[in-house]
Amino acid sequence: MTDSRPEHSPIDHFSVVDDCLQIGDRSLTDLAARVGQTPFYAYDRALMTRRVEHLRASLPDGIALHYAIKANPMPAVVRHMAGLVDGLDVASSREMQVALDSGTAPGDISFAGPGKSVAELEAAVAAGITINVESPTELERLGAIAERTGRLPQVAVRVNPDFELKSSGMRMSGGPKAFGVDAERVPELLARIGELGLHFRGFHIFSGSQNLRPETLIEAQSRTFELALRLADAAPGPVEMLNIGGGFGIPYFPGEKPLELGPIGEHLARELPAVRERLPRAEIILELGRYLVGEAGIYVAEVLDRKESRGQVFLVTNGGLHHHLAASGNFGQVIRKNYPVAVGNRVQGTEREVVNVVGPLCTPLDVLAQQMEMARADVGDLIVVFQSGAYGFTASPTRFLSHPEPVEVLV
Amino acid sequence: MTDSRPEHSPIDHFSVVDDCLQIGDRSLTDLAARVGQTPFYAYDRALMTRRVEHLRASLPDGIALHYAIKANPMPAVVRHMAGLVDGLDVASSREMQVALDSGTAPGDISFAGPGKSVAELEAAVAAGITINVESPTELERLGAIAERTGRLPQVAVRVNPDFELKSSGMRMSGGPKAFGVDAERVPELLARIGELGLHFRGFHIFSGSQNLRPETLIEAQSRTFELALRLADAAPGPVEMLNIGGGFGIPYFPGEKPLELGPIGEHLARELPAVRERLPRAEIILELGRYLVGEAGIYVAEVLDRKESRGQVFLVTNGGLHHHLAASGNFGQVIRKNYPVAVGNRVQGTEREVVNVVGPLCTPLDVLAQQMEMARADVGDLIVVFQSGAYGFTASPTRFLSHPEPVEVLV
Repeated sequence: MTDSRPEHSPIDHFSVVDDCLQIGDRSLTDLAARVGQTPFYAYDRALMTRRVEHLRASLPDGIALHYAIKANPMPAVVRHMAGLVDGLDVASSREMQVALDSGTAPGDISFAGPGKSVAELEAAVAAGITINVESPTELERLGAIAERTGRLPQVAVRVNPDFELKSSGMRMSGGPKAFGVDAERVPELLARIGELGLHFRGFHIFSGSQNLRPETLIEAQSRTFELALRLADAAPGPVEMLNIGGGFGIPYFPGEKPLELGPIGEHLARELPAVRERLPRAEIILELGRYLVGEAGIYVAEVLDRKESRGQVFLVTNGGLHHHLAASGNFGQVIRKNYPVAVGNRVQGTEREVVNVVGPLCTPLDVLAQQMEMARADVGDLIVVFQSGAYGFTASPTRFLSHPEPVEVLV
Repeated sequence: MTDSRPEHSPIDHFSVVDDCLQIGDRSLTDLAARVGQTPFYAYDRALMTRRVEHLRASLPDGIALHYAIKANPMPAVVRHMAGLVDGLDVASSREMQVALDSGTAPGDISFAGPGKSVAELEAAVAAGITINVESPTELERLGAIAERTGRLPQVAVRVNPDFELKSSGMRMSGGPKAFGVDAERVPELLARIGELGLHFRGFHIFSGSQNLRPETLIEAQSRTFELALRLADAAPGPVEMLNIGGGFGIPYFPGEKPLELGPIGEHLARELPAVRERLPRAEIILELGRYLVGEAGIYVAEVLDRKESRGQVFLVTNGGLHHHLAASGNFGQVIRKNYPVAVGNRVQGTEREVVNVVGPLCTPLDVLAQQMEMARADVGDLIVVFQSGAYGFTASPTRFLSHPEPVEVLV
């Protein structure tokens, strides 16, 4: 009988020495001692660098890369990424401050979000970053700020496309949406930008995220270019930037395979010349968050207890959903599935077993691994949740049950 | 044609004056001005007081009430509750400090949680609070602490029952579980408590939460008493406390009705004499969190934008899932349903419409109301999410996208 259950895509970007996971050229147990506490998140800067290099090698020249800070806003991570990519995308005032702190030029920072307050818009105008306008109200606010302050807002239009990105983790386009301006209403908005005398920078067209199918991403990119070229005819000035979004996924769950970049790069190379010809002054931007940092991070918790209950083993750790909501299956997942999880200081072990890894919270939602095979672990061992570099710490309810917070380190 | 779609249970515990919601004897708009920012959570102390009074009137004498701090650990709320109930239950060291700060006697505080660290256990022993032991490992740790420090641990046994509480929001008993010690193994643990010479206080038997069916709760209570009486025979000393858990739910979603207390009180009155006879020294404790504070709280956000997209209206607010994860449908819900939501400063309004209420985050998960009928609202109006006094602020990923935090006030 062959076991054909889907498996996790192998985690081969971290090495293992003497059966102990290595991160940033040191062993996990060493790192835990240096951090001085568990749980912690550790992000590997070399892996981020390698990821950006690999991406650039797969893409045609002339595609600019932006890092979407929301994936991981730790200032040290943002500074590291700022040195690798061509620009940063922010989603709040605080993220804007972190982006500016990194030394990135305001012209290479853009700000998107369906609900920007007047204070946020004022700060963004004062900083000189590009504001992705998402509604007529927002545009009028920017007009008023320009008049009141004498500063010239730099604006792009975020477009809610008239197509959908299929099979995405999160669909964010097509149909009625809170994000951006419906494609069919963009021409009015462009005319109004001209009337208000704001500086028009270009378009932001984002159709989804966490997609693992090259053919879907390719189709979305084609339709994005098509839409941008159509809209450019109504623009009040030359298109200086065209942010085509990202949507590149990473494999989290059993059966998921890493995204193949080859076909995407080839397709972009084929389409780019025509786009360049029509929009000669436009920087073509790919905006990625999770794809750049997600695989470079791990979450580490310590086993506090090993107990058996009615035939199952439970490893109770000091970490859980309060630190890593997504890994517990409670952030946008309909059916809970396991992230890749291992015993970091005993990766293969001498004995294997099927266990549940749970957190310290009084809720059955607090699960890090359900009936998963791993090395036999005991109190003091370190449980590692992989694929945790994006939407981990900041996407988690850290105050829930008032337990201590995890530390974050960049190694 | 009659519209038979399920509706939200009416929110009649807040009054409305001049079409504006009142909380703590003042209008919501006044309160917003006093708070000085949106979003905020507001908790009404009078409603908490009334809820406890109502509960006491429905229960037989001799049932002690405990407040489970995890539902809402705001120190001002805990202090208020401490004055109303007979004890507090905590789930972490930090919660223990808040409980002790409230002036509650250590003997009236108990600590549960499947993963307590050695440091937490030491602090709990030093404080003299009751520790609900959840595993043999934990018991041995307490034995070692007693020996090392000369302090006498006060221990109760948390039991994983051999029955299930059906139709609960969260089932926490029956089958293999991380919580407590399997009922069938409790006698061994009791013997060991005797050997270690720890102070035995009693049992904590918790079978689920957020239940709206009296018959289910009644059955669980019966079986809990039965189990406790059976286990008491093996106890190393008299049972001084029997915490029968809680599990009382509040109505969140369309079609849900408030829990009827009558049958529960009558049933407890019938069962109590026999339990008292067998366990004459036991305080019988009902431990409730959500039921005591959930309905007393609201979450308030301000409309930043009103936009239309392909035939639907979107009210974009400055609050969302980063402040109130449960209301966005991302905390333990399989299918997203709307919490009760209204325009607080215009409850009925002159015009009604069906809208989506969304937050400022760049994710389609950031939804507070989906296609819900409410008064027509515009920029500056206050959106209120009811039933938000429990598992709101602290159960939310406040750092997600680095937006400002909400304020909490007790009025």
